[in-house]
Amino acid sequence: MGGNSFGKLFTLTTFGESHGPAIGAVVDGCPAGVPLTIEEIRSELARRRPGGGGTSTTRAEPDDPEILSGVFEGKTLGTPLAVIIRNAGAHSSDYDALKDCYRPGHADWCWEAKYGLRDHRGGGRTSGRETAGRVIGGAVAKAFLALSRISFHAWLQDAEDLVEKSAAVRVKGDSVGGVVVCRVEGLPPGLGEPVFGKLDAAIAGAMLSIGAVKGIEFGAGFAAAGMRGSEHNDAILPAGDMWWRKDLPFGVPAASFADNHSGGVLGGLSNGMPLEFKVAFKPVPSIGREQKTIDRSGNPVPLTVKGRHDVCVCPRALVVVEAMAAIVIADLMLQNRAAHV
Amino acid sequence: MGGNSFGKLFTLTTFGESHGPAIGAVVDGCPAGVPLTIEEIRSELARRRPGGGGTSTTRAEPDDPEILSGVFEGKTLGTPLAVIIRNAGAHSSDYDALKDCYRPGHADWCWEAKYGLRDHRGGGRTSGRETAGRVIGGAVAKAFLALSRISFHAWLQDAEDLVEKSAAVRVKGDSVGGVVVCRVEGLPPGLGEPVFGKLDAAIAGAMLSIGAVKGIEFGAGFAAAGMRGSEHNDAILPAGDMWWRKDLPFGVPAASFADNHSGGVLGGLSNGMPLEFKVAFKPVPSIGREQKTIDRSGNPVPLTVKGRHDVCVCPRALVVVEAMAAIVIADLMLQNRAAHV
Amino acid sequence: MGGNSFGKLFTLTTFGESHGPAIGAVVDGCPAGVPLTIEEIRSELARRRPGGGGTSTTRAEPDDPEILSGVFEGKTLGTPLAVIIRNAGAHSSDYDALKDCYRPGHADWCWEAKYGLRDHRGGGRTSGRETAGRVIGGAVAKAFLALSRISFHAWLQDAEDLVEKSAAVRVKGDSVGGVVVCRVEGLPPGLGEPVFGKLDAAIAGAMLSIGAVKGIEFGAGFAAAGMRGSEHNDAILPAGDMWWRKDLPFGVPAASFADNHSGGVLGGLSNGMPLEFKVAFKPVPSIGREQKTIDRSGNPVPLTVKGRHDVCVCPRALVVVEAMAAIVIADLMLQNRAAHV
Amino acid sequence: MGGNSFGKLFTLTTFGESHGPAIGAVVDGCPAGVPLTIEEIRSELARRRPGGGGTSTTRAEPDDPEILSGVFEGKTLGTPLAVIIRNAGAHSSDYDALKDCYRPGHADWCWEAKYGLRDHRGGGRTSGRETAGRVIGGAVAKAFLALSRISFHAWLQDAEDLVEKSAAVRVKGDSVGGVVVCRVEGLPPGLGEPVFGKLDAAIAGAMLSIGAVKGIEFGAGFAAAGMRGSEHNDAILPAGDMWWRKDLPFGVPAASFADNHSGGVLGGLSNGMPLEFKVAFKPVPSIGREQKTIDRSGNPVPLTVKGRHDVCVCPRALVVVEAMAAIVIADLMLQNRAAHV
Repeated sequence: MGGNSFGKLFTLTTFGESHGPAIGAVVDGCPAGVPLTIEEIRSELARRRPGGGGTSTTRAEPDDPEILSGVFEGKTLGTPLAVIIRNAGAHSSDYDALKDCYRPGHADWCWEAKYGLRDHRGGGRTSGRETAGRVIGGAVAKAFLALSRISFHAWLQDAEDLVEKSAAVRVKGDSVGGVVVCRVEGLPPGLGEPVFGKLDAAIAGAMLSIGAVKGIEFGAGFAAAGMRGSEHNDAILPAGDMWWRKDLPFGVPAASFADNHSGGVLGGLSNGMPLEFKVAFKPVPSIGREQKTIDRSGNPVPLTVKGRHDVCVCPRALVVVEAMAAIVIADLMLQNRAAHV
Repeated sequence: MGGNSFGKLFTLTTFGESHGPAIGAVVDGCPAGVPLTIEEIRSELARRRPGGGGTSTTRAEPDDPEILSGVFEGKTLGTPLAVIIRNAGAHSSDYDALKDCYRPGHADWCWEAKYGLRDHRGGGRTSGRETAGRVIGGAVAKAFLALSRISFHAWLQDAEDLVEKSAAVRVKGDSVGGVVVCRVEGLPPGLGEPVFGKLDAAIAGAMLSIGAVKGIEFGAGFAAAGMRGSEHNDAILPAGDMWWRKDLPFGVPAASFADNHSGGVLGGLSNGMPLEFKVAFKPVPSIGREQKTIDRSGNPVPLTVKGRHDVCVCPRALVVVEAMAAIVIADLMLQNRAAHV
Repeated sequence: MGGNSFGKLFTLTTFGESHGPAIGAVVDGCPAGVPLTIEEIRSELARRRPGGGGTSTTRAEPDDPEILSGVFEGKTLGTPLAVIIRNAGAHSSDYDALKDCYRPGHADWCWEAKYGLRDHRGGGRTSGRETAGRVIGGAVAKAFLALSRISFHAWLQDAEDLVEKSAAVRVKGDSVGGVVVCRVEGLPPGLGEPVFGKLDAAIAGAMLSIGAVKGIEFGAGFAAAGMRGSEHNDAILPAGDMWWRKDLPFGVPAASFADNHSGGVLGGLSNGMPLEFKVAFKPVPSIGREQKTIDRSGNPVPLTVKGRHDVCVCPRALVVVEAMAAIVIADLMLQNRAAHV
Repeated sequence: MGGNSFGKLFTLTTFGESHGPAIGAVVDGCPAGVPLTIEEIRSELARRRPGGGGTSTTRAEPDDPEILSGVFEGKTLGTPLAVIIRNAGAHSSDYDALKDCYRPGHADWCWEAKYGLRDHRGGGRTSGRETAGRVIGGAVAKAFLALSRISFHAWLQDAEDLVEKSAAVRVKGDSVGGVVVCRVEGLPPGLGEPVFGKLDAAIAGAMLSIGAVKGIEFGAGFAAAGMRGSEHNDAILPAGDMWWRKDLPFGVPAASFADNHSGGVLGGLSNGMPLEFKVAFKPVPSIGREQKTIDRSGNPVPLTVKGRHDVCVCPRALVVVEAMAAIVIADLMLQNRAAHV
């Protein structure tokens, strides 16, 4: 499977350069019979559109998706769903100055060292625009998982702070990072494939594949490193009256946990508590302030990145974090069907 | 590929329950012609053996590996290497009390909900003993990467502190967590497979697949979320006199970076700086203090875990962290050979 | 990887229903730097267009491809190539009669038993139209392999016979099968990944994935079953003056073979002789003559398939056979780069 | 996934050189809860042991398997099963003469061109002994599939003929090929993953991965190429009283087929009829008669292969053909669980 595909049974393949004709996604392995409309995809895409709050680019990205295959009479067919979005509103000339030098904080130089050539216009394939394909995949995954009452909710850890800081740095041509928190509710216990396809391993791989992400932690996370076992272990309790835990297979007794330091995952398997994790985003590397770099001949040159850029990606990244989580969970839900006879 | 296999070209498959006849690993896709001896595997395994410092179990684990295939006259054949370690020194009766209840902080309950049955002796497949297979894979990967002068070094972030804390909690029947730092040197720029097989994504997935890991961060990591772009971006400089950067393909100019906030990875590709990341381990969940749990009938029971357990896994986990990093890098080095014509 | 993706490093994902908005393909893992134009794709697609000779459907399929990504200034970028073809000329109403019954020789009934629903219009995803995506992938693979002077040539085993038979059965509303022969020249020795990814195993899997294919044989093939070892073994000779065999790695001596009973593959590895295999196609199952089948209620009904169908798929399948072979070879050429240090 | 692994959910990884310490297999992804004993593996292995009938080598291969993991109290755990067989009875010195020359009909020369080195003793990894690992995987797959009443039966197409011919050529130091027929009964309709993971594509890839196989055909096979559609199409009939066809999902009506020209597969999906295919084996390439080859310096040398070899592999290959079929079917049965919501 190529580097642009993700997943084992429920798979996402994305394609497209920022200033090429179109970007898009192919979702394969979605079970047949999932009710799905273009509106569900469109409304998820709208969440990653640049918006208010002073954190986003002013590039107009209508992101109008078209479903090319895989849906018939309002339901998934079990065949691959292809969805494309035509690129529009691209100002390629904004990027002419970047053709022959390498932006700090970006992959430009590494990319040339790997592939020998690159589409410099709008960042080409390394553009944040690539995440639209992930959101398409996430919309399909969510539609499938909604049938099992599994839901996804991501938010900014310090939302008010972030808006304030964004406004402050925007006028200085600078940018800021942030932390996104994500919670997944409704997971049955036992999701995850030991030992390398653990739930948290799959989620971590998915999140770090999002551009600008620099870290992830589950439950108590890095703080757990400073805790004692007696503090960190979540005591196991009889389940009480929570609905889903009453219906466990194999005569396994209903259970609950006194706390959620684990973040909902034990030994790589979901434990029925909400899956909770935090994702750290670095500041947007494209800034209006002058930076040091080199040109294609290796000579030092000053660089001021022009164009319309986000000050902070986090608000637009919420739906991307949810999407990647949903794709991972959809895949693990299907893999889990093979766990026992 | 099953959940017990890892990698795409350089692959590791591990097997074995803690108290079964043996554990082991199959490494497939290692290129032919790598010099390799049993000693290299044995010495890496020795690093994860319980040792001094007051942090480890007292279970004697000689971990004597036997190579069954894949090596001929001191070199890898290009065929799969199978290595097994007989289990010895197992006190299965220590675990009888755990057959009918679920240990807090462990996967016992989730495992039964997934598979319907489990080998409770010594944790079965969920035992930390499983990591021996990873260390075998890591030893092979390191031997291959040594040919490219790529090296791995992991250490405890707060080593003295940890020893002190371990001694303090051991007498109370408790445990502690910790943070492991890892640095990889010698990587050529451009390693990583956009967009889902990015270097940091692959490393994150690998690290979170290690039991007890709860978080990972690269370079500035979570602190990056609080930085400005002008602070976080590492300026790009002419390379000066560093050896390897002089030999780049495609006429790409030699380069260096003013700092390493990125942790050596930009846009998912290595940038030639050392790859640096931190891994958070939770405290060992098996503790001698009484905890609340339930039994197979769902009734609350008190539990005091007997047996010989680590107080902190971090010292023994250093070689495991290095091993997983080496396996990821070996795989990406091979995948990178397909990047251009 | 989903069922609609193929390959490990050089991968093809296809999508699209026959009467949906579009069909298409995503090629991922093609190395950067391959010269490629839309013309190369278009001319390959033209070869599978219904044509003369009296064997084809009269449906007009202009098959006008659009490249959405992955090519920049005439070269592949190392990013995924997405290519789509809008569906046109579809007469969906021709298929109304097929909505509630199952065509003999087709997957209709099996499909419903698997997925619970199907797009009956034009066969949906099971249409031969799906092969256009394979041809797109093949065009990219051929462009890559042309750089290594590897070429593909498929032809009809009994071409004149076939035209004659086709004409004879067309007037009776019937159809015929045929055998396609394929030869690949220019392969370096050693292609193929023991033990499950052997060259012939990969080719066989690829060919049988083409609709209507019922068999494959390499070299002497089924006739080999009746031969003696002393007849079938191709004697190994010094290479003489053939160009490529002079440049073997590892000091391996140049060699040639007295004959090609092996079809160019020994122990799953290419041996430098032309790769030769034959593929058997069954007769087109959609025929104008009345057949017995059942309807959705399980009642027997007579069926006469209307619409415009090929009398024999073989002439149009030549380019599909070549395409699948090219995709396999491109993938194995890349995998082969990882064979030794 | 490396070249020595096979399958997607139910996976087999094999390892081992013919004259190394051991050969073996790891089966991952077998669902938990399958009753399994060492006897089932041992009795399958016994079927590939050299035996009577005058077709086999006289090398004593007791093939005594040891299960290292994955089974607990008589049932599979859902964890990987590792099984090894120690090599014994190896006469490595028989092979000294082969170190510096290349056997006709074998992969020796191609192998060196690929890997640069090889274990010449007993053919190393290319030995037919490698198939023991496949038989282990097959035994596990059969145990799983027996729960669904799916059974496998392979036989020699011309059994009496073969014994006679074998006796005749043995005295001349020659060998013969043969055809193996395989029938799989009890498959539910709908198995197979369009468009690249079709049932027949997966079976064909599996069979051609067996050493010495040169062709495969399903149902009417190559003969289908000469048939008309009206002859080849199997009419669809109401099911009558066959048991399993009465219990189809989605309200799909019970059905049967008037004949089985399709060999049980339509459009890549099982249709509920027995899956039937034929596999062509070439004659054993190791023969006692003098053949032409070259040595490592490229000089022509005469070669007479010593050692104990089969005259015909087909009798011993029956269980290997069944094994590979069972592994494919087990994998597709699990994949099929993800077909619909």
